[in-house]
Parts: sequence; C-alpha cells; structure tokens
Amino acid sequence: MLVRLDGPGTLVEQIYAALRAAILDGSLRPGSRLPSTRALASESGVSRTTTQAAFDQLVSEGYLETRPGSGTYVAAELPDGSMAASRTAATSASDAATAMRLSAFGRTISERRLGVPNPDYPVRFNFRYGLPPVESFPYDVWRRLMNRQIQNISLRSLRYGPAEGAQSLREAIALYLARSRGVVCTAGQVVVTNGSQQAIDLTARLLVERGDLVVIEDPHYQGARNVFAAAGARMVPCPVDADGLDPDFLPPADAGVRVVYVTPSHQFPAGGVMPIARRLALLDWAARSGAVIFEDDYDSEYRYDGRPIPALQGLDGGGRVVYAGTFSKVMFPSLRIGYVVLPPGMLGPFAAAKWLADRHSPTIEQETLAAFIGEGHFERHLRRSRAANASRREALLAALAGEFGDRIQISGSNAGIHVVVWFSDVSADLTASIVTAARAEGVGVNPVAPYYLSPPAVAGFLIGYASLSESEIREGIGRLARVIETISSTAPR
Amino acid sequence: MLVRLDGPGTLVEQIYAALRAAILDGSLRPGSRLPSTRALASESGVSRTTTQAAFDQLVSEGYLETRPGSGTYVAAELPDGSMAASRTAATSASDAATAMRLSAFGRTISERRLGVPNPDYPVRFNFRYGLPPVESFPYDVWRRLMNRQIQNISLRSLRYGPAEGAQSLREAIALYLARSRGVVCTAGQVVVTNGSQQAIDLTARLLVERGDLVVIEDPHYQGARNVFAAAGARMVPCPVDADGLDPDFLPPADAGVRVVYVTPSHQFPAGGVMPIARRLALLDWAARSGAVIFEDDYDSEYRYDGRPIPALQGLDGGGRVVYAGTFSKVMFPSLRIGYVVLPPGMLGPFAAAKWLADRHSPTIEQETLAAFIGEGHFERHLRRSRAANASRREALLAALAGEFGDRIQISGSNAGIHVVVWFSDVSADLTASIVTAARAEGVGVNPVAPYYLSPPAVAGFLIGYASLSESEIREGIGRLARVIETISSTAPR
Repeated sequence: MLVRLDGPGTLVEQIYAALRAAILDGSLRPGSRLPSTRALASESGVSRTTTQAAFDQLVSEGYLETRPGSGTYVAAELPDGSMAASRTAATSASDAATAMRLSAFGRTISERRLGVPNPDYPVRFNFRYGLPPVESFPYDVWRRLMNRQIQNISLRSLRYGPAEGAQSLREAIALYLARSRGVVCTAGQVVVTNGSQQAIDLTARLLVERGDLVVIEDPHYQGARNVFAAAGARMVPCPVDADGLDPDFLPPADAGVRVVYVTPSHQFPAGGVMPIARRLALLDWAARSGAVIFEDDYDSEYRYDGRPIPALQGLDGGGRVVYAGTFSKVMFPSLRIGYVVLPPGMLGPFAAAKWLADRHSPTIEQETLAAFIGEGHFERHLRRSRAANASRREALLAALAGEFGDRIQISGSNAGIHVVVWFSDVSADLTASIVTAARAEGVGVNPVAPYYLSPPAVAGFLIGYASLSESEIREGIGRLARVIETISSTAPR
Repeated sequence: MLVRLDGPGTLVEQIYAALRAAILDGSLRPGSRLPSTRALASESGVSRTTTQAAFDQLVSEGYLETRPGSGTYVAAELPDGSMAASRTAATSASDAATAMRLSAFGRTISERRLGVPNPDYPVRFNFRYGLPPVESFPYDVWRRLMNRQIQNISLRSLRYGPAEGAQSLREAIALYLARSRGVVCTAGQVVVTNGSQQAIDLTARLLVERGDLVVIEDPHYQGARNVFAAAGARMVPCPVDADGLDPDFLPPADAGVRVVYVTPSHQFPAGGVMPIARRLALLDWAARSGAVIFEDDYDSEYRYDGRPIPALQGLDGGGRVVYAGTFSKVMFPSLRIGYVVLPPGMLGPFAAAKWLADRHSPTIEQETLAAFIGEGHFERHLRRSRAANASRREALLAALAGEFGDRIQISGSNAGIHVVVWFSDVSADLTASIVTAARAEGVGVNPVAPYYLSPPAVAGFLIGYASLSESEIREGIGRLARVIETISSTAPR
C-alpha cells in the first residue's frame, strides 16, 4: 500500500485521506486487514504515532475496526453517507469541465468547489454549529398535526399551490415576526422558501449580475458568500467588531454596490449585535447608494443579555431590506422551511423566480407548520429551548473559564447558540492539528479561520452548544483543553 | 361604476377582469349589491348578454353571489388564493424595475411575466392538465409510513442531509427506473429535486449562458421554456409531429446548441411517442454537436397502446442525457419531489448547485417516499391509477366521438393523462370565447395555442382526464359540445 504524502494538510490528515479514499474506491476491501502501524511507519518513513492518529480517526468514524489481539480491519459496513460524499468529491472540476461545457455559474461552483458541504464526522462531543438541539423537539405534536393535515386534506392542498406559499403559513409568519422581531409586514410580503438558503439564492439571482459588487461581512456566513460568489459577484469585505458590521468601512455610496449581506442580530460567526446607531447608518447608506440590504436573521430567537433591537427591516419601513429567517435552527434543519419578507417592489419578481425554480415548497408541511405556530406549539418550544440553551451557555462559559482562564477571549456569547473562542497564545498554524486531534478524542470543533477573508494570526474556534447536554459540554471542553495543551506545548516556537 | 373597455381580450373578459380587480382592491366591498345587468348594459353600451356572461363567471368562481329575487352581490368571503394571485399580478414589471435594479434574469422574468402561473378556476368539470386524480391516493398508507418515520426518527434525519438526497430514496428511484423505464444508472447518479421543475432550472443554470442556443419542441411545455427564457437562452423551435420531435429539423451540429429539451415518452402537449429510429438520430446529433439532451419523462407511467420504448438515457449509456421525472403526476403535485439522473460529469456540479440553491429536499418526506416505493405501495398505486385512467380515457374518447364525430382530430391518446383535440371547422379566433363560455358552464379546458411558438389556425384544446370520474367526463364533454355549437354557429364567417 503506497500513500503519497505531498499533498495539503498535516501528515495525519494526508494518511487519513489516502486510507479513506482507498476504502471508498474499493482498493481496500471491506473486512480486509491493514498492515500494523509499525510496518506502515517503517515503510513510509512516517512516525508510528502519526500513523496511529490517522488510524484512530478512521476507527472513530467507522471506516476501520480494531479487533483486540488481531489488528485493524476495514469495516464490513461503511458509515452512512460516506459513499455519497466521496462520489461528489470524486467528480472534480476538471472531470466536469472536460465532459461538457458549463455556464459561468457552473464553472465557478466547480472550480471553486462552492457547493460542497464540509464533511460532518460522527463524534461524541460535537460542538459544530447548526446541529439540532438534544432536548427533543415535540415530535408527537408534530406528528399529530401532520396526521390531521393528511386526514382532512383538501383537493386544494394536493394541487399546485401559490408560489408565495400556503396563505395560512404566510399569515402565521407575519404575525410572529411582527410580535417578536419588530418586522413591519403584511402576510402578502412573506414568501415561504426552502430554508433561508433559497432566500439568499433567489435574491442573488434577481439582483446580482456577474461582476456586480456585493458587500459581505468579514468574517461571514459561507453559505451566503458561496451563493454570491457563484453568481459572479465581486465581493467587498466589510470589517466586523463587537458591534457587528461597521458602516464606516462601507464603500462610497456611488460605488455601485448591489447588495449588502448582513447578520445584525448575531453576527455570524463573530457574534456581535449591531446597535441602533449602526443600523440607522447602514440604512441611510443603502438609501443613498441604491443597494439592497439582505438581513439574515438566522438565530435571532436566542438572546441572553441586553435589550432586543428591532430588525433593520422594521426600521426601514421595508423599502430596501430583504429580511430572511429560517425554522431550521429552532426546529430541525432537515425540515427545509424558511421565509423571506420582501419590499413590495421585489415581491412579484421573487414569487416568479420561486415558481420557476421549484413552483412552491411542499404544502402539507407548510400547513402543518402553520398549525404548529398558530396553536402556540412553536413559541412554547422556543421558550423551552431558550431556557435549555441558556443553561448550556452557562455551562459552556463556566467550562471555558475553568479550563482556560484568561488565555482565551470569547465573543458572541450574548445571543445565538454558538460562541467564538480565541486563544491569544496559540498560533493559527496549529488550528488544523488541534481540530484533527480533538476529533480523535471524540470532540468536534470548527476552526473559525475559513469564515474570514483574511484570518487572524491566533487560533480561533467556533463552538456551538445547542446539541449537547451540560455534562457533555463540560466533558467535551475538558478533552479539548487537554488536546490544546498537548499540541501547543509540543509545537516548535 | 366605470369600466374601461379598451384592453386586450373579449368584452366578457374585460368586464370580468375589471369587476374582479374592483373586488380585490376593495373598491367593491364584500356584501355590496351590484347594479342590474340591464342598468350596466345601458350605462356601458355593452349588451346585457355580455355583461351577464361576465357576472356568471364571477359567480361560478365565488366572487359574486346571486340572491333570487334580489340581485347580485359581492361575496362576503372571497375565494381561496384570490388575494395572493392578485397581489402578484399587481406587482407589474414597471413597479419592480423602478423600485430597484434587477439582474438580467430578474428583468427577463418580470418583463415577460415568465414565472406567473395561469390562474386555476374552481369549476365542476375541470379538464385542466396536471390535476391530481380523483380516486384516492392511499393517504392512510402515506400517513402510516410518515408516522413511522417521525416515530423512529434518527438524529441523522434531523440534521442537514446530503445535497443529492436521502440515500434510501436515491436507491429506490434507481431501481424503479431500471425496472420500468430502461434507465441505466446507479443510485449515485440520482439527485432528488423539488419536482422536475427544479431539475430543469438547475440544469439551465449549469449549462446555459445568456445568448446560448436551446432547442425546444414546438409545441412545448411552458414550464421548461420559461426557465430557459429566464436564463437568457435563444430558443430554437423544432417541429413536432405524431412521432414527437423530428430530428431532421434540428439545427446543424456545429450551430453551438447547448441543450435540447425533449419529451420523448409522450410529447407535451401534442402527445407523440418518439420511435426508436428518431431517438437514435437525436442521440447521434447530440454526440456530434456537443449538446446535452434534457429528457423530461413527465408522464411515462401511463401507456395504453404500443410497445414501451426505453428512455433516451438508457440508449445513450448516460453520457449526454439528463433524465428527469417527477412524482407529482402520479402521487400529488404539492408533494414537490422529483428526480434527475445525471451523466457522471454533471453529478458534482449539479449536487453543488442544489446545495447552494436550497441544501436538499426535506428528509422526512424523502424517507417516507423511499419506504412507500420500497414496500410496493407506489407500484400498487400506479397499477390502480393505470386501470382507472385507462377507463377514463375510454370514456373520454367515446364521449368525444359521440359528440363531435369526425369534426375533430385527437392526438396523444396512446399515453399520458391528456389528449389534444383539434376542431378542423372552428377558427382559432374563437378559442378564447369557447374557454370563457365553457367556464361559465362549469367546464375547464385549456387552449393549446399558448404552447406553440406559431399556433395553428384552427381551435385546439388540451383535455386532461385524470381528475374526473367517467360520468363527469361524459357530462363535461356534453356541455363543452353545446358551448362550441353555440359559439361556432353564431360566429361571423
């Protein structure tokens, strides 16, 4: 077995990737025995510890199995989803480009791998952002409401529905947003989308030509950046501080910016909450520049300190703000229902784009969700989740303080369901090794660097906490501390 | 009440539209009494019969109510969906364009109203294409399977899933297509989409630049034409006869055509089934020209005469054919689950585009559908639907023969769930009046002319029959016959 070790990433990562690829393409067959780490190490010139770390990781992900006293074997059954992920990865940009001529959109997403999700590894202490909460969503209620919808289904609900979404859901969303978010809208301005992702994509299609300027926060949500990049936008990064996007750094009003993508309620990922003065400055700039503000209110439901600040949309009167939200973070991501509140001038084009893109979102789920909101289950679930997330947040902040003291800086803890942790004495170079070693210890954390256009020099991690119990949070942060201690103390200075 | 009568359409249509608009914008209030048709007629100079026809239509749609001996009133409750439809219609191209600068895509769909669905009127005998069948879909089974999915839900099913779709559903689709459609593919080539509409849209985004050539059948499916038009394609119409698209009329292989959109199993709307020789000729042309064939197998499930012909995709070996289908026509349209089978070179870009567009289709529904197919319910439902549709088709053909004899020509009756009926002695000019008068008699039919780039000179109608019982089909065709008799006998020659 030959492993070429001249690619990107650490040696552990390269050995890991080579073995995984060999398992997925079948050259290492299910059930076959691997050479010992000792044999591999002497053959490849790589230390046994390094080889063992790669093995450990593959064992923890289910690609390899150890049999005590016998050795390491390729698992008889591969982990779920591994084949799909590998197949996508295997179709590289060059394969596709030689096979058929792609559009500029197609070439951009292929060459820059914009639509390829980060792999999610099954680890026991998963601090990745965007996982559903552990405390159970009320599935019994959801099932009962969905049963009722199917039982009383009308011919109207079976046929194609309006592109804008089910009227009952649009009304429920408009009421909820007015009540809890200060959004000023009628149900007629709401369009139901497949998550906020589709709201971003359709907005980009309607407003952005290739070469147009789009302002994004730096750091920013990659799911939005990738959509605008795929649309061919020239990206203008705008710096972010503890108060979110800083309007002083916006381009001149006559620069021709088309869209500003912004997360004022809880800047993603850095966590700042934009104060009212900055909101008004941003709106004023947008009015002068003619740009549209895309306000992604992705986890506005969770706030811990400070007074709630109304949405940009409500401050604006709705003229230049596209406001988007999602039920994924509060309910469960695979539901795929989000919404957008549109300025009146964009409603017709947006509904038309939705109709062309996929007609409308599935009706039974929309009607079930309308009943779920209308009968108070949504806000009840939200109250319970808020309390649980507040306790988790306390546990996380206490664990971080206990393990790291003043070695770290924490940002974004006053809202949302994640924080960013910076290690002022750990170099950014060590981030990848820490992530890999943590994974081998069963701890999943994301480095924050990929969210920046120009990443900081010190190591930073995005720590989501909604999907873990308080004791798991304590145990996970403890393990992470030991990993960081080991790696930063053995690193060359 | 002043009605300006200088717009497009017949006088009946103009009066209808003006009254409906006045009801929707509130200038005619719910419960208010309308002037008599006599008074209106003398005031506007339009005949009482014409005014009455407009009233009748508004009554049949639920906008007006008659109270015997008292007159006609604006309905206290407006029909479902009327507000949403009017709101979209009210946001005209110019409103949107002045409000904010749209992209070329946005301008195209706004100016050409590409994404605005045809209104669907509630009529008793609705022969519109695309309605769900009357005989009940097994909702009890569907509900039971969905309950089971929710009850046994795994954390994996709640999280973001793979862009390509749930593995279980991709496998079920690949098996079904291999067994019943001669499609040659692995589950890895299948991507689950939100109906076939999304498959068309993502394909257009990946392959078509503004100005590129796209071949479409003439006549053709508007849902596909509108997507390619919105993408800025230059449309090359290719004539269709009783054998579907005629490859002799394709542009030269060096013309630079990017995509050919084709419906070989049952040409939409004309109904031809493409014989094997034409299929091979089309594939040969595609190989020479470098074009991608988009094979929309939209209602391949229903065949009555002749031998099944394998999909283009299977004949090609999968190199240049994107094959798409949907569960909407067989199950129910509001489910919004379709699929696409991709050539290997397009799989990566397509999955990436799906991930950017909306991540993935909802997981619980995908897993429920996988179980529905895997446990044999889908094909059982299909068998029952086939038998029921065959009986409906017999009833329709008998009713058409009985009412019209050899005045008509019928095309497309050997497959699918609709036919096209041509009246060789009725001028195309009368089509709109017939559709309107039929609606007033409770009969919904679509003219076929809008599906053509250059419509024929005689009147033709698209008659869908899957959503009506045999006795409704007989009664509806009888009413249609009386309407056509009345209108064609009173028309000036």
